[in-house]
Amino acid sequence: MTEEIVVVEGDGIGKEVVPAAVTVLDAVGDFEFVEAEAGDAVREETGEALPQETYDLVADADATLFGAAGETAADVILPLREAVDSFVNVRPAKAYPGVDALRPETDVVFLRENTEGVYSGHEDRLSEDLSTLTRVVTTSASERLAEFACDYAPEGFHVAHKANVMRETDGRFRDSVVAVAEENGVDTDEVLMDAFATHVCLNPEQFDVVVCPNLAGDVLSDLAAGLVGGLGLLPSANIGPDNALFEPVHGTAPDIAGEGVANPSATILSAAMLLEHLGYEEEGAAVRDAVEATLENGPRTADLGGDASTEDVTAAIVDRLD
Amino acid sequence: MTEEIVVVEGDGIGKEVVPAAVTVLDAVGDFEFVEAEAGDAVREETGEALPQETYDLVADADATLFGAAGETAADVILPLREAVDSFVNVRPAKAYPGVDALRPETDVVFLRENTEGVYSGHEDRLSEDLSTLTRVVTTSASERLAEFACDYAPEGFHVAHKANVMRETDGRFRDSVVAVAEENGVDTDEVLMDAFATHVCLNPEQFDVVVCPNLAGDVLSDLAAGLVGGLGLLPSANIGPDNALFEPVHGTAPDIAGEGVANPSATILSAAMLLEHLGYEEEGAAVRDAVEATLENGPRTADLGGDASTEDVTAAIVDRLD
Ligand SMILES: CC(C)[C@H](C(=O)O)[C@@H](O)C(=O)O
Ligand SMILES: CC(C)[C@H](C(=O)O)[C@@H](O)C(=O)O
Repeated sequence: MTEEIVVVEGDGIGKEVVPAAVTVLDAVGDFEFVEAEAGDAVREETGEALPQETYDLVADADATLFGAAGETAADVILPLREAVDSFVNVRPAKAYPGVDALRPETDVVFLRENTEGVYSGHEDRLSEDLSTLTRVVTTSASERLAEFACDYAPEGFHVAHKANVMRETDGRFRDSVVAVAEENGVDTDEVLMDAFATHVCLNPEQFDVVVCPNLAGDVLSDLAAGLVGGLGLLPSANIGPDNALFEPVHGTAPDIAGEGVANPSATILSAAMLLEHLGYEEEGAAVRDAVEATLENGPRTADLGGDASTEDVTAAIVDRLD
Repeated sequence: MTEEIVVVEGDGIGKEVVPAAVTVLDAVGDFEFVEAEAGDAVREETGEALPQETYDLVADADATLFGAAGETAADVILPLREAVDSFVNVRPAKAYPGVDALRPETDVVFLRENTEGVYSGHEDRLSEDLSTLTRVVTTSASERLAEFACDYAPEGFHVAHKANVMRETDGRFRDSVVAVAEENGVDTDEVLMDAFATHVCLNPEQFDVVVCPNLAGDVLSDLAAGLVGGLGLLPSANIGPDNALFEPVHGTAPDIAGEGVANPSATILSAAMLLEHLGYEEEGAAVRDAVEATLENGPRTADLGGDASTEDVTAAIVDRLD
């Protein structure tokens, strides 16, 4: 059976890095690619950043590879995460040999709750002066995340939260995650999200896997991106019960879009996560190794100090696949 | 008229670093110090972490110097910020010559909204499965913060927020702050709080003053602490309309408490902010210079690689006051 992979390039460098990743996927497997549209350009044309057709395709696909959207990012990616009922956003932040990193010791995976927190989005304008947002935390979502974390990191993980202030909501999050871990015999360490921000700078080695609420995961993974040399290298996976959506953590990079010089590494690493998720463990590992070898030995795009094109880098990665 | 300064040592190293700062204040001015209690030890004795008497003293003082509280930190510091009706938490994060810093170029001041956001604390347990927190943003609080920011940074500032997701609440925050800045002819640049986390690692030079909602200020200032070498050096000021409360950003450091080896710099720098706030500009500058000279030339406490005691460092700072 040929798996169906929906491909949503989106805007800006999405149009360059997603085709690069498709080239790599094509080189290692036999997939059916279905293109779908989303983002600023579609909104310009149709008034809607995320056509229903794209939503439906993503919801039904075996997996989706997404690039980036511009101003409409939130209008596109939040519903698409929902389309795959994604309860966890897996975000590895790893420094690579050959890439300048503020903290080369960094190798942390964030398991970000992907459905609630402030992202549940109930906001009200209560008066001329006052607006509110209802932050939502459920035991069920926290437990689902924790089950995943126990499988992912049986050797133990950190739980980041701000339960000293958000006692009821982050307290529920923390207690639910810790309870599931205990049932599964998995060790956990708690860390306040503000303290994490300091400590990951001072001692990144101490963190391997960090389970966090939605916004905490957003900010802390971007912080880790700063420690490994920028967003250009971070892949991510939005995992749902039946399928999943993979995307680089970076945006559309309008300053370099259209020039063919974007770094495709984050998207190709996202494709490696996609392969592993579909059960192609060996192919996923091969792609990851080829990306790492290319980061170490070149060719490199301008963001990493080189002058290679997106195509050059992609060709080098394909060459290095065994 | 002798100003009345309330002194709340709190727990752990608060009992060492606050007396150090009082010694320095005594050396530059004529203040009346009134001691008040708060923290874990008081709760142990009386059942209450923050006695009403302390709250009232802080509310009425010209200024308060606070150390740190242990497990009861949130029960103590959040009401005390409220006691002075503090609408802004000023948090400078600066790397100092002589101190190992991940990013020696860092010199950022956070102006953190200090009354609302998720800290307004309305939480509900709606069902066995579901808890909510009501995040509050008002135009009035955002404008008050912005007026302060325009005075503080007439050359312009950044506004950090997550208005792409929290459209109504952080949208209100952003729009209110930007509108006040425009009225005052002050430039602003917007930055998403997650993007800030990456960019401050990659290029701290680009940020001078950053205005942010409450939790964003909490996490991003702790991140900046990681870039300048740890929490041990960060002072802060909780400014209200009539008075103010000053505190180091660090906690009680239970691992070294009681040994007389805590670094008093953050608290003494907080005392310098107190002096400036009370109008003792020259004295404040002298204290800051003396702390900086001591950080550069020693003696240094163990956290900075030295073996001096809190008293040694304090004496050296007093010696260097001109
Ligand atoms: C674009 C935005 C809605 C999104 C988020 O906040 O999740 C982005 O920052 C991310 O982390 O993928
Ligand atoms: C102790 C805690 C309530 C406090 C906060 O979140 O404001 C602390 O982290 C700080 O930043 O001063």
